[in-house]
This record gives sequence, C-alpha cells and structure tokens, in this order.
Amino acid sequence: MHRFKIQSKDERTFFVTGEELHHLVKVLRLRPGDKIKAFDNTGAEWLGIIEFISEDMASCRIIAEGYPEVEAKTNVYIAMGLAKGEKMEWVIQKGTELGMAGFVPLRTSRSVVQLDHKKAENRVKRWQKIASEAVKQARRVVEPKIFPVADWAELPEIFPANMQWLLPYEEEKNTLFSNILQEFDSNYPIGILIGPEGGFTPEEVAKTKELLNARSVSLGPRILRTETAALAALVMVLAFFGELG
Amino acid sequence: MHRFKIQSKDERTFFVTGEELHHLVKVLRLRPGDKIKAFDNTGAEWLGIIEFISEDMASCRIIAEGYPEVEAKTNVYIAMGLAKGEKMEWVIQKGTELGMAGFVPLRTSRSVVQLDHKKAENRVKRWQKIASEAVKQARRVVEPKIFPVADWAELPEIFPANMQWLLPYEEEKNTLFSNILQEFDSNYPIGILIGPEGGFTPEEVAKTKELLNARSVSLGPRILRTETAALAALVMVLAFFGELG
Repeated sequence: MHRFKIQSKDERTFFVTGEELHHLVKVLRLRPGDKIKAFDNTGAEWLGIIEFISEDMASCRIIAEGYPEVEAKTNVYIAMGLAKGEKMEWVIQKGTELGMAGFVPLRTSRSVVQLDHKKAENRVKRWQKIASEAVKQARRVVEPKIFPVADWAELPEIFPANMQWLLPYEEEKNTLFSNILQEFDSNYPIGILIGPEGGFTPEEVAKTKELLNARSVSLGPRILRTETAALAALVMVLAFFGELG
Repeated sequence: MHRFKIQSKDERTFFVTGEELHHLVKVLRLRPGDKIKAFDNTGAEWLGIIEFISEDMASCRIIAEGYPEVEAKTNVYIAMGLAKGEKMEWVIQKGTELGMAGFVPLRTSRSVVQLDHKKAENRVKRWQKIASEAVKQARRVVEPKIFPVADWAELPEIFPANMQWLLPYEEEKNTLFSNILQEFDSNYPIGILIGPEGGFTPEEVAKTKELLNARSVSLGPRILRTETAALAALVMVLAFFGELG
C-alpha cells in the first residue's frame, strides 16, 4: 500500500498536499476509493480512504490509527565526509531503511568533493528526498533528518553534549567494536564518524577526540570502502542494541 | 601499493601474466623497479620488485612473504535471488570487502531477471571480476568463489551437509538473529539466503526448511531492500563471530 507524508489532518481526515499530492495523482494515479497510509513524523500512522481530490489536496477519511513499533529506539546518526559519485545517496537510502536517526554531510580535509553554498543546499534537498522515499520503502513513520553540510567545529553545536561518538578507523588495531559499545548507553544518541575516500587525517582524528570525545574502533582487518564502512558500522551499532531483530 | 593475482611462482620469483599483466603494463604503467604485492588464493601474500617485463609476463623478485591474518575464519556464503539492476554487483563487491567466502546467484520464483545459459555464464564471469577487484581493494588474499547460477535443488549438492543456513524473512516476527546465531558453530560454513525484490514465496520458504534445514530469522521491523538485507545479514553474522573488529 502506498504511503504519504502529510502536514495536516483533523480528527477524522488527513490531507495529502504539495509534492505528495502530485505523486498521488499524477504518478500513482490513485482515485477516490483507494486506500493509502499516511505518517507525519510524530510516530503515528493512519490508514485512510481517499474521499475527494482537488487541485490542492486529497482528502482521506481515517479508517485506522496506529503507533507502529517500527522506529529504532536507539538514535544513531552518521556523520560522513563528502564522498564522490552516489556514495552519499547510497548511505542515506540504506541507512534510512536500516533505521538511522539522521545524517550529517561533513566537510573533511581529504574530501575530493567541494560544494559551494548553493550546491550544498541543493544536494541536501536531494538527500532529504532520498531519505523520504526510503522511509516509505521501509515503512518507517519518522524521517531521518539530513543536516546541512557541516564543518567539524559545528558538530558539538548541532548535537548534545551527551552524544556518544564512534570513529571506525583502519589504523585502530586494538579496540573491538563490541567492547566500546558495551560502554555506550543506548538512552543517549550515538554518532558514527566516517571519512571520505582518503580517510581522515591524523589531525582530524585528534580533533574527533578533542571536540567530540570520539572512541576509535576497528572494523576488522579488511579495508572497506567509505560507504561499506558507514553501513557496516551502522548495522553493528543497531544490531548490538537489538534494533535489527 | 598495487596487488595482483598470480598463477605461477618459484622460490624467489613470482610471475604476473594474462589480464593481470595487461593491467600492470597498460593501465597502471608499472615498470621494472616498482614494488607490487601478489596473492594466489592460498592465503599467502608476497612483496616483490618487478625485474623484467616481456609480452607474456612480468617477473618479480620476492622481497618478503607473509600470511596476513586478513581472511575471516568463519566462512559465510550469500545465496541471493537474481535481482535487477546492479544489486548483485553491489552485494558481491561489498560482501567481498566485508569478508564473505562465496556467493551463489539463485534462480527464484519471483526473480524478474531471467538469464539463459549463455547470459548466466557471462554474468558470472563479470561477477567474479568484481569480486577479484574487491579482494584487491580490501587487501584480502583469497578470492570468494562466485558460483554458477543455481536452482534451489542444487544448493544441497554444492554445499556440505554441515552448512548452516539462515533465512532472513520479513514474515518472521519471533526469532531473534542473535538467538539463532548462538546455536550456530563457526567451525562450519554459514549460508545466508536472500530473496529477490519480491521476496521468497511460501513454497520456497518451506523448501529452504526441507532441503537445507534453514532457520528463519527477523531482521527487525523495517522492510529492507534485497541488497540491504544481504549486507546487513552478512555484517551481523561476521560481527557476531568477531570478524569485524
């Protein structure tokens, strides 16, 4: 069944508007009588029947309301150095399916990709769309937040002081992922720092420890591409806290 | 440093031939005096200096030999229903980086992709190449085997009777991944069965239990794309057995 994000509803009706309406009418060609699901990022989900469609909205009578237990209780964020090609899109899409809470595109020393202010804004909009589509695919009810492209110094401003940061790092031979996770508290958010293709510089690694008190961990002896590392680390954190079955 | 798969060596020299030679000479433009690494799927790795290059081979004097502890001790295979686009390629590439032992492309009921014998052969050759490139990227020393496209009935013939099969299945609400893994023995190979985009049919699920004694497991409440499920399950199995740091 198709799913839509909504901005407005009343007690017995929800309304599909804007781009979601366009998708409903022009792409999916849904009509009065069709059943759809809706969510609004509060954790609720509604089942409704389309009653009528105007130029501005599709009005849907609510048949059922629920609070599906589909969101991860542990809030895990990925902060990823700007990488080439479609790697960011890939991590955002699959990270959303897996259950991440949010994503920060990070300007790092070795990023080949440079984005001026306008490009960065457009890219973030596109990434938020990808996250929104993945939310529907995964049947989630809360969209992960895609943050504006950030510099290192902004991370302590964006996130609370109780954020627990992990730094998967190929130079780290000694510290087992699971050992570190045992020291983390899943009641507080967790952040995973992933470097661009060239990895982090030693200065950046030092900065993660200074600024963020990040714990560096090994992801094992095999060298992973940046996007593989991002997803592997995310899966390991979510699985450790029981969020993946 | 560049890595090459070799077929022949003697005590003090290894030889790069065939397509690997082409890559060395024409693409990477390496020359006598350059240092390279070599592996031959036995677990060994050599560091050598190119001494001379002919039309048929590059002859390299061995400077060092080692048995890097880079391969996963637990042998994990993925058997994946033929899926569209580049999903097979992604899973093979990233599965190889992560440490999988092998990959079986599986003909399943709901696979949209149909491959006749010739297409299947060519596809497998391409997939083996992708695995070989990923082995170099990851600095592994043993290439995972990409099996010929198989039908269900062939799986018990391809794999030993002590193979332990997992079936991540979205209809499975009750069985936690970690509970099942606690019953597995990492001394014996583990296989992960992944459906195509439409998933497995109930008949196929029954067949996995009959033919393979597969244990079905949940991957959590969110619906994952086929390639996300494949990688998440692989990460969870490898991480459980300590293969990812």
